[in-house]
Amino acid sequence: MKLKIAVLAGDGIGPEITQQSIKVLKAIADRFDHEFEFEDAIVGAAAIDLLDNPLPEATLDLCKKSDAVLFGAIGHPKYDNNPDAKVRPEQGLLKLRKELGLFANIRPVTTYAKLIDQSPLRPERIQGADLTIFRELTGGIYFGEKSTSEDGQSATDICTYSVEEIERMAHLAFKAAQQRRKKLTLVDKANVLETSRLWRKTVKKIAEDYQDVALDFLFVDNAAMQMILNPKQFDVILTENMFGDIISDEASVIGGSIGLLASASVGGDNAMFEPIHGSYPQATGKGIANPVASILSAAMLLDHFGLVEEGDVIRKAVATSIKLNVCTEDINKDNPYSTEKVGDFLEGLISESE
Amino acid sequence: MKLKIAVLAGDGIGPEITQQSIKVLKAIADRFDHEFEFEDAIVGAAAIDLLDNPLPEATLDLCKKSDAVLFGAIGHPKYDNNPDAKVRPEQGLLKLRKELGLFANIRPVTTYAKLIDQSPLRPERIQGADLTIFRELTGGIYFGEKSTSEDGQSATDICTYSVEEIERMAHLAFKAAQQRRKKLTLVDKANVLETSRLWRKTVKKIAEDYQDVALDFLFVDNAAMQMILNPKQFDVILTENMFGDIISDEASVIGGSIGLLASASVGGDNAMFEPIHGSYPQATGKGIANPVASILSAAMLLDHFGLVEEGDVIRKAVATSIKLNVCTEDINKDNPYSTEKVGDFLEGLISESE
Ligand SMILES: [Mg+2]
Ligand SMILES: [Mg+2]
Repeated sequence: MKLKIAVLAGDGIGPEITQQSIKVLKAIADRFDHEFEFEDAIVGAAAIDLLDNPLPEATLDLCKKSDAVLFGAIGHPKYDNNPDAKVRPEQGLLKLRKELGLFANIRPVTTYAKLIDQSPLRPERIQGADLTIFRELTGGIYFGEKSTSEDGQSATDICTYSVEEIERMAHLAFKAAQQRRKKLTLVDKANVLETSRLWRKTVKKIAEDYQDVALDFLFVDNAAMQMILNPKQFDVILTENMFGDIISDEASVIGGSIGLLASASVGGDNAMFEPIHGSYPQATGKGIANPVASILSAAMLLDHFGLVEEGDVIRKAVATSIKLNVCTEDINKDNPYSTEKVGDFLEGLISESE
Repeated sequence: MKLKIAVLAGDGIGPEITQQSIKVLKAIADRFDHEFEFEDAIVGAAAIDLLDNPLPEATLDLCKKSDAVLFGAIGHPKYDNNPDAKVRPEQGLLKLRKELGLFANIRPVTTYAKLIDQSPLRPERIQGADLTIFRELTGGIYFGEKSTSEDGQSATDICTYSVEEIERMAHLAFKAAQQRRKKLTLVDKANVLETSRLWRKTVKKIAEDYQDVALDFLFVDNAAMQMILNPKQFDVILTENMFGDIISDEASVIGGSIGLLASASVGGDNAMFEPIHGSYPQATGKGIANPVASILSAAMLLDHFGLVEEGDVIRKAVATSIKLNVCTEDINKDNPYSTEKVGDFLEGLISESE
């Protein structure tokens, strides 16, 4: 397969971790005879420094004409901690998502036996949990009309969803469930909210096309409990924007390895892949940043284009590296490997196992 | 102090647990020379059976003219599992809250060293956590206008808050913080929602009247993480209706003793006190129901009228009973005490320690 990949490494540790992902993707291309073409563009604080714009036109153009975007991280204290800053790095990311029409955010939560002691949950609760959350990203109350009354005495936010917005999400989530354990849980608040009732009705209808997937429903308050009590019950979770924000952040900490979590943001014509962690500016250039979240987001990129076997090769290599403690200092405190060495090791595993 | 207390024991285990709370309150009245007058009224499934109305007028009248309502639990499978049921027990509770103007829901989460192994969290994370959540109960998106477009292709929910609704909540929460560890955390999503910005602005202003309370802010998605990662950081949490629903349910499971949690719903002129657990119909009449959540809600009733010393006497007695394993079978599996025996033991402790 031929893929044109825009690389937006961004700020802080973004460039050094993204470099390892490219290394790993190149090893995959070699092994499976694909042609991946990488092109860099600036974004975030780096772009503000140069062009006073966190998402320059040239960067957006490149993303639009590429098959996928590999994103590092953005954010820099000189803007983030300055309340007078007019342009902020994060605006680049929000605008990019919007311009590319990325309506679905996908966040897998995987656990590694070796890291189970870092989880805030008891081992028996979390061991073996493996779920993925499909969060609608461009609708709902976060993007609805907002207003304050003229006298300043009341404020309003409007939450709206259309059948179309729900359908395109549901199809993505059902398809993912078919590739996994064939279970889909819709998280909503259908006993109270009209939008939730529309979600439930629409998702039930679409479920008819995916008879092999078991569909169930959970109110968001109950979901927040179940994520702690028994996360192993979940396979694919589908939910609207705000509930997804809350539940996916909650889910991100139960495994104890938030630094290893990848994400995808997917639209009709575009897709972007990034670690969920930030730019971690204080670690920049020290070779201590963990590249695994970025590398796992590269694996999601491959999945997205149907290269699931290739994605699995990366995930297996990562599992091996963690088992062997070939890890950066956040995981391997006693004998840490550098960012680059971890990338090299994974590259080697992927090439070797041909 | 003279208090007229309406007793709405309700369905399932409601009557047997509420009976223990009355016993304990009577022991308090004796010891501290108060006059508590109790009057029973029917509610829930019991009231539907008799009068086809889950909240009969006479019950509502009694509640209105009483100082406080001691509530047991409602819900019965013959209505809950029947999709054709026109009146449901829960409607009685919702109507009661509305009619009494109970705008604040208060839920303390306490941990007991003896029960720490029942928590889904690792002991070091949860040990010593002691927080209380103030959730706005009558506003926000749950009670906003709802609509579906004529063609059925989109749905809308509206979230509105007024300064007045926020102020009355904030005063309650700040006052509670003054009686506790003097920390208040407002949970909102002020980076996105207009209503959250109104909450933040209003709460900041009111904070000026409570200089001894440290105020901080947390976005709801981050709060959902922090509740798992480090629940000990919280003292009083203040939040709007839907965020409070999610965060308080999440918080209810971290201690591992959801069956022991009490709650208060407070308005300008009325207040109601109830366990957060349900009517547990399958345990009815077996003497196995844990009365502690109800008894702790009776302690909250005392607090509400400024009888904090009296409330503390109950809480200390409960802590002692748990330490000594004088507990029902949900906690003491090997040598369980009956519902009534636990009530008797607590009554005895309270009377003795005079
Ligand atoms: Mg978030
Ligand atoms: Mg709830």
